[in-house]
Amino acid sequence: MLNTAQMYAGLRQYITRYIEAQLPDEEFNLIEKAFQPKLVRKKQYLLQEGEICRFTGFVVKGAMRQYFVDAKGNEHILRFAIENWWVGDRESFSHQTPSKYNIDALEESELLLINLTDLNELRHKAPSFVLMMQKIDERSFIAAQKRIHASISYTAEERYLDLLNSNPEFLKRFSQNMIASYLGIKPETLSRVRKHHATNG
Amino acid sequence: MLNTAQMYAGLRQYITRYIEAQLPDEEFNLIEKAFQPKLVRKKQYLLQEGEICRFTGFVVKGAMRQYFVDAKGNEHILRFAIENWWVGDRESFSHQTPSKYNIDALEESELLLINLTDLNELRHKAPSFVLMMQKIDERSFIAAQKRIHASISYTAEERYLDLLNSNPEFLKRFSQNMIASYLGIKPETLSRVRKHHATNG
Repeated sequence: MLNTAQMYAGLRQYITRYIEAQLPDEEFNLIEKAFQPKLVRKKQYLLQEGEICRFTGFVVKGAMRQYFVDAKGNEHILRFAIENWWVGDRESFSHQTPSKYNIDALEESELLLINLTDLNELRHKAPSFVLMMQKIDERSFIAAQKRIHASISYTAEERYLDLLNSNPEFLKRFSQNMIASYLGIKPETLSRVRKHHATNG
Repeated sequence: MLNTAQMYAGLRQYITRYIEAQLPDEEFNLIEKAFQPKLVRKKQYLLQEGEICRFTGFVVKGAMRQYFVDAKGNEHILRFAIENWWVGDRESFSHQTPSKYNIDALEESELLLINLTDLNELRHKAPSFVLMMQKIDERSFIAAQKRIHASISYTAEERYLDLLNSNPEFLKRFSQNMIASYLGIKPETLSRVRKHHATNG
């Protein structure tokens, strides 16, 4: 396990990389005060369907997933989050409305959590944080657009290859079933595509 | 056709509604200077594949679509934009890299366009505009998430009903083929679903 100082150092490093500039100490002190460390053990929930998402989390270590369960009881994974990613249901968090999603830990995870009040305060007091958020929003939007592009036009094989290219670590860390759920294809199809690719690639 | 004053008034109204506050005249003057009116006639392009997206556009009147053509020559519609929506390929615009997309007009469209330099200047000089952009980014992200949710878990029928619920005007303004392309389903499937729904709904 990381100690608290290491966790905050991880966040500081992340912000500095994003803003491509030094993060002033006084701004970092505000950020540090706004985020609380949280350990989520494997299979524990950060959010359950029907709850309001009270926190947005920065993943310092570990792996989480955001998923929903359809009317037939099937799980669909919307997002994974590993080191240096953010977790939370944005709609529920921003509007403080009940979430349709669950977020749980696939590995023991160490997070830094912030609530909406503290986030809004940072929006007014820490320009570096605002800049980072703008850049993340942009990146998230572009990533979401790519995923829509893939989902309306790619075959199962193309989706797999796209993931292999964009986030190869997912394929090492998560089960076949989870990867299939994330790609929106059947586990048997994924298995066939992987086998085909392993032979011909 | 709208006159220029009406076009800017449309943008002003839009921003005011978004920021839920009065837009100061001096800020609006900066915004007005930054945006240029542009008429795009039906079937004309705002952006073609391989070009750098030089402008982001606010649609005052009309309807545009953003689409790409896959290796087999099939068109896939990623987004529509009608009155009070924005058009542009965000990735290409922000990074000034060649776009994979085409944007053309489905109806004669009247836009207000801004380039990246002017947009960045507004980011520094017009706080109301920044606030509006934050809110739009959030809304866009949530909308993209919903679309991913739908595409990985919804049946063709559920996708159609979801669109009927979220953007019923699309179904009136755009052809069956375009709606099918947007939903990522076959035109025959859409036709069957619509017929079924018209009979039983």
